[in-house]
Amino acid sequence: NADGGSYDAVHDASSPAAGDCCAQQSSAQHNWEMNYQEAAIYLQEGENNDKFFTHPKNAKALAAYLFAHNHLFYLMELSTALLLLLLSLCEAPAVPMLRLGIYVHATLELFALIVVVFELSMKMRWLGFHTFIRHKRTMVKTCVLFVQFIEAIVVLVRQTSHVRITRALRCIFLVDCRYCGAVRRNLRQIFQSLPPFIDILLLLLFFMVIFAILGFYLFSPNHSDPYFSTLENSLVNLFVLLTTSNFPDVMMPSYARNPWSCVFFIVYLSIELYFIMNLLLAVVFDTFNDIEKRKFKSLLLHKRAAIQHAYRLLITKQRPTGVSFKHFEGLLRFYKPRMCARERYLTFKALNQSNTPLVSLKDFYNFYEVVGLKWKAKRNREHWFDDLPRTAFLIFKVLGVLPFFLFFILLCFPDTVVAVNGIWILVETFMLQGGNFFPRNVPWSYIVFLTIYGVELLLKTTGLGPVEYLSSGWNLFDFAVTLFAFLGLLALAFNMEPFYFIVVLRPLQLLRLFKLKKRYRNVLDTMFELFPRMASLGLTLLIFYYCFAIVGMEFFAGVVYPNCCNTSTVADSYRWVNHTIGNKTVVEEGYYYLNNFDNILNSFVTLFELTVVNDWYIIMEGVTSQTTHWSRLYFMIFYIVTMVVMTIIVAFILEAFVFRMNYTRKNQDSEEDNGIVLEKEISKEEVIGIIELYKRSSAATETSQLQKIVLQMDKYGQMSTLFLGRRSRTKSDLSMKMYEEEIQEWYEEHARKEESQTPSQESAPTSNNSLKPLSLRQRSQTVI
Amino acid sequence: NADGGSYDAVHDASSPAAGDCCAQQSSAQHNWEMNYQEAAIYLQEGENNDKFFTHPKNAKALAAYLFAHNHLFYLMELSTALLLLLLSLCEAPAVPMLRLGIYVHATLELFALIVVVFELSMKMRWLGFHTFIRHKRTMVKTCVLFVQFIEAIVVLVRQTSHVRITRALRCIFLVDCRYCGAVRRNLRQIFQSLPPFIDILLLLLFFMVIFAILGFYLFSPNHSDPYFSTLENSLVNLFVLLTTSNFPDVMMPSYARNPWSCVFFIVYLSIELYFIMNLLLAVVFDTFNDIEKRKFKSLLLHKRAAIQHAYRLLITKQRPTGVSFKHFEGLLRFYKPRMCARERYLTFKALNQSNTPLVSLKDFYNFYEVVGLKWKAKRNREHWFDDLPRTAFLIFKVLGVLPFFLFFILLCFPDTVVAVNGIWILVETFMLQGGNFFPRNVPWSYIVFLTIYGVELLLKTTGLGPVEYLSSGWNLFDFAVTLFAFLGLLALAFNMEPFYFIVVLRPLQLLRLFKLKKRYRNVLDTMFELFPRMASLGLTLLIFYYCFAIVGMEFFAGVVYPNCCNTSTVADSYRWVNHTIGNKTVVEEGYYYLNNFDNILNSFVTLFELTVVNDWYIIMEGVTSQTTHWSRLYFMIFYIVTMVVMTIIVAFILEAFVFRMNYTRKNQDSEEDNGIVLEKEISKEEVIGIIELYKRSSAATETSQLQKIVLQMDKYGQMSTLFLGRRSRTKSDLSMKMYEEEIQEWYEEHARKEESQTPSQESAPTSNNSLKPLSLRQRSQTVI
Repeated sequence: NADGGSYDAVHDASSPAAGDCCAQQSSAQHNWEMNYQEAAIYLQEGENNDKFFTHPKNAKALAAYLFAHNHLFYLMELSTALLLLLLSLCEAPAVPMLRLGIYVHATLELFALIVVVFELSMKMRWLGFHTFIRHKRTMVKTCVLFVQFIEAIVVLVRQTSHVRITRALRCIFLVDCRYCGAVRRNLRQIFQSLPPFIDILLLLLFFMVIFAILGFYLFSPNHSDPYFSTLENSLVNLFVLLTTSNFPDVMMPSYARNPWSCVFFIVYLSIELYFIMNLLLAVVFDTFNDIEKRKFKSLLLHKRAAIQHAYRLLITKQRPTGVSFKHFEGLLRFYKPRMCARERYLTFKALNQSNTPLVSLKDFYNFYEVVGLKWKAKRNREHWFDDLPRTAFLIFKVLGVLPFFLFFILLCFPDTVVAVNGIWILVETFMLQGGNFFPRNVPWSYIVFLTIYGVELLLKTTGLGPVEYLSSGWNLFDFAVTLFAFLGLLALAFNMEPFYFIVVLRPLQLLRLFKLKKRYRNVLDTMFELFPRMASLGLTLLIFYYCFAIVGMEFFAGVVYPNCCNTSTVADSYRWVNHTIGNKTVVEEGYYYLNNFDNILNSFVTLFELTVVNDWYIIMEGVTSQTTHWSRLYFMIFYIVTMVVMTIIVAFILEAFVFRMNYTRKNQDSEEDNGIVLEKEISKEEVIGIIELYKRSSAATETSQLQKIVLQMDKYGQMSTLFLGRRSRTKSDLSMKMYEEEIQEWYEEHARKEESQTPSQESAPTSNNSLKPLSLRQRSQTVI
Repeated sequence: NADGGSYDAVHDASSPAAGDCCAQQSSAQHNWEMNYQEAAIYLQEGENNDKFFTHPKNAKALAAYLFAHNHLFYLMELSTALLLLLLSLCEAPAVPMLRLGIYVHATLELFALIVVVFELSMKMRWLGFHTFIRHKRTMVKTCVLFVQFIEAIVVLVRQTSHVRITRALRCIFLVDCRYCGAVRRNLRQIFQSLPPFIDILLLLLFFMVIFAILGFYLFSPNHSDPYFSTLENSLVNLFVLLTTSNFPDVMMPSYARNPWSCVFFIVYLSIELYFIMNLLLAVVFDTFNDIEKRKFKSLLLHKRAAIQHAYRLLITKQRPTGVSFKHFEGLLRFYKPRMCARERYLTFKALNQSNTPLVSLKDFYNFYEVVGLKWKAKRNREHWFDDLPRTAFLIFKVLGVLPFFLFFILLCFPDTVVAVNGIWILVETFMLQGGNFFPRNVPWSYIVFLTIYGVELLLKTTGLGPVEYLSSGWNLFDFAVTLFAFLGLLALAFNMEPFYFIVVLRPLQLLRLFKLKKRYRNVLDTMFELFPRMASLGLTLLIFYYCFAIVGMEFFAGVVYPNCCNTSTVADSYRWVNHTIGNKTVVEEGYYYLNNFDNILNSFVTLFELTVVNDWYIIMEGVTSQTTHWSRLYFMIFYIVTMVVMTIIVAFILEAFVFRMNYTRKNQDSEEDNGIVLEKEISKEEVIGIIELYKRSSAATETSQLQKIVLQMDKYGQMSTLFLGRRSRTKSDLSMKMYEEEIQEWYEEHARKEESQTPSQESAPTSNNSLKPLSLRQRSQTVI
């Protein structure tokens, strides 16, 4: 909102105002380069939702900014964070195979921490000291870094690992990575949803306490009922009952004595589980929706502000009503260095809706929607193989036409084939009751179906062309499955046992059946759209897991082992006995000792079991019987935390699907195309004009690229070519359409607010440009 | 939509056209009475969402309609249905205490069925044969009745009960009751939500099958893993895993052998439980929202049509632009016979927004919103006891003023008192570790707190007056809790052991704490608003329970008993052994034999346990080991059915809360008042005018009622009195406000549609009145 480094650029035609206060070089071109770069930075900040107060304020800061904003640096950040996290595989309660000496892992840790120090110092250089200490996340990171550093040194000096719960804080290094922006957003959203969540949680706990007191009074006279013997037991068991984990058991002793006691449990479960828990979901869902909308709004306004900043840097004094292609091209060189000349011009044309040589601010506001488009010349050829040499062309033509009826049959009924295959596999598997599953000989059905799939794949490839064929997700899936089936065949044929697992993946082919129905296609498409967001939510959950795993390992490593808990109520689940009956050895295995915190991998599995919630009290009671009563707190807190995260995941899935379905309902006719498509025509003269422009600035690669287009046009004798810009539809596009009416209100409200805040600054541009053009290093050079 | 019995009434001033074709009596007054009655019937049909094709078409039908539409008849319907349902308590696998001889219960059944026949014949008389067989629900009911009749006779003849699964169909008699309209709506909504639900369910089952095949291939070579030994086992266990009921156990044998096998289970649960199950909720929620909106729309349009029909019956030829009070009053006499004269006039005034003597159609459209208002003269007195005789008045005045400071303190800090009391109870309970819980002496804390509550209650009652005090739900709750505490005190003081349970209810007082926070008040208010709907959903669930209980009893009664399942995998849970160790008898009880289908009450508890889902497979396996593999189908189908109902309950709670919260957010300022309030002023002249009107029609009670108002006005020397109409806000009001804009569109669209359907009929009223005014029996007489 507050833009610390805002420059109001006033330019004349050839030289932007930014150049006036520049000491080293005064050429207009260089000043323009500076403006392009800064505009590109603004646009990036807008896209990444970086606040403008972190905008680099001078040349030194700019250099640091450029250094810290490229994929190499990001990768370094990420790998350092991952290294730190992975160290817990090798530290004290280590995974047996990966155990390292204290010297080794402490040195590795120190090394990683030093890298983090370097990263932070670069950030400080870029932000400046004042902004640095104002930036909360960075400050927390610095503190954690300091603590970790001291601890690592202590470990090295003492040569023994002390209780290092602070290792749980290592997550912050991962969360702070550039690539983990989504995780940060999720965490923020979780924390924002917390207050209403906690309110309802208190209601839940309150009822639990009331029922615990009631239950204690009602059932403790029954001495055969261990669940309510004390108030503590009563509380713990009702907490577990909330998760239904001990359900019929906890009721049974009292139910056996008096059938009407079931009323207590039915009322408790109805209130707590079926009412308040759903209320919790409702409240979180509602808060979530609200936050999503507010987030969308603030992001939209932030982007708009970024575009305004960039725009002001690109207009000239002489022509203040718009941005010319020359300057727009300069901006794109920094903003998207990999974009080719043709795409740059097409983007410009797509933005420019008034057909004047300048893009006005109003048109420029669409920058983010247009810049993501991938441009392709519209095909005016019949087959994909028209471009190939003559002989190959003929062969393909024959291939494509000859088995047309086969092609047709398979295209019409491939799903029948898949269904038959599915039933076949099911029946075949059902027939195999034990015994050797992998026949020495390849079954004939396998070969038949694989042949059919292979032929279908070949025909489709021939018909559509390999590129177009593989551009569809479903075809890609078909391809992968057929390939796997083929590999499985090879594995069977050549008896390569380690690859038998591929054969096992065969049933996945049945997934093809889901192409058939529109709802499934919708569901699966939405699933793919959601996937990045789901992955980030999963990662968020993993970060919580990591924290709890570290704490669990520090406290509970090694406390659970076979026959450990024979005095507790859950002894059976931990019992491991070798009976010898007659001459036969019977092993009675209670496997629960495997659910331990002995190393980080085991901890993760144990935590997953706790997340699934069923029978979690066995794990809790096992650990509790070996430690203290207070261990229960760990498990209960974990339950509540996962409940929060899970509820939010549910709310997210709900929101996303309901949103999408609403959207589909609103736009039932325009739903067919699965993306944003834009059409632009370019005439030959235009291309030649641009070539001239590039020739003047002596850009050889761009010129040759464009000349190719001209040659292409000449070849087909066209005066113009039609280009299609295409990109997949994002959540933001959907939101734009859903909130269409409100968006205008937001803009107006925002504009009013801004006007009242900065009455003179915005209306009368002054030339207080604080960015000194110093570094020749350009973003394009840094990235490549 | 189609209005079979629609009459276009053309009236002259004194006599409606309806009277022209009347044979017996030709007095205008009687014809008007007929019109009033028919208009009232239309309005009732609109309110109850009865289709107009069931509108009584002639005088015979009208008589039957009136007979079948009053609370006596409804009660008969309900009690017959309940009797039929309750019979299953006494039939074959009966609750031991309620067992009846076959003769007795079969005779009872026959009696109930004959009553149903009578009800149906009344309905046929009212609907006419053609409409009767067109009405689907009634036809199904008739068929079921027929089957039940035959079966009951067979039982009587054979004197032994055969397998009577059809008893499960008895529910239909309950569902068809007038009072169970909400249940019918729920069922309809459930069936409407089914198609998308089934789609996603298939996806779920599909993945289950794929994973079952995979799991079978992967884990069956491990002979210590009983869960995947055959494909059937694999399928059943993955189905159970879907409910997480067997979670860590099913993983353990393979996890013990190879730690990486946990990946299979994690992937399965992530896909099935965390993704598809949530998807299911999302799809149901979305469908639910959509259905709610469509339902609201159709109900709104239906009501509007009903109002149009009624309006047309009330206007006269001379004054076709509106309804006069005289006719409106006539309508209300039939529509709401218990309404007093004052309220009728106030309703008329509230409708009439143009202040002309006639209510136009546009105003008349608000009929349903206005008719529910409860009217009260606005208090212009200071205290509620002003009306009482002088001495009592003085006493109360002193009481109200004297302990003002105490009153004040308690009003400000009652919550502190409650909180202290809560902590006190908790600590007190915590101190009692076993032993006799009910002290012989009443603890002093109990008396102290009870005194405080008592004083608070007294003061509040004095201050507000008993009527106003008890009109608030929260005060009512306070009152009930204090009363209970007082009863508990009595029970303790006089050592009445059977009433000790009242003492146990003490912690419920803590609920008062939730008045404090706005969110809780909102939540609890919403809860109370939702309560009727929740209750109807609960009843719907109970109906499903009933069906399953009957089927379960027929198939599984008596199959489960202690030590029944020693050969199955769940033997432990059913084992019941008396060990004698030394001279001490240790009873090892696996209580699961209590979860049986031996009578209907036990079945309900068992089904509730199956609904909660935890450890349900133990019940399933127990029964399966005693019967056949196919028994599993019963349990699996029950799981899926409850999943449907539960998902819909969740969707309903979600929808209701999110809707309410959205509404609150939209109307943040006008949210304070918890209901619809309307103000209307009546002048003395108006009242006198109405008295004249009533005198003319010689209605003595009405006249005297109104004269009281005049006297009241005279007493206080007012020329007019202000009346307040008040009613609680319903979901329909909220929807009206939420969809405000769309509603206008719906109306227009509907009007357009109607115009195109009936181009001449509506515009040119003809007098084809088919209802012969025959019966003098009026609705008011039937009801009272």
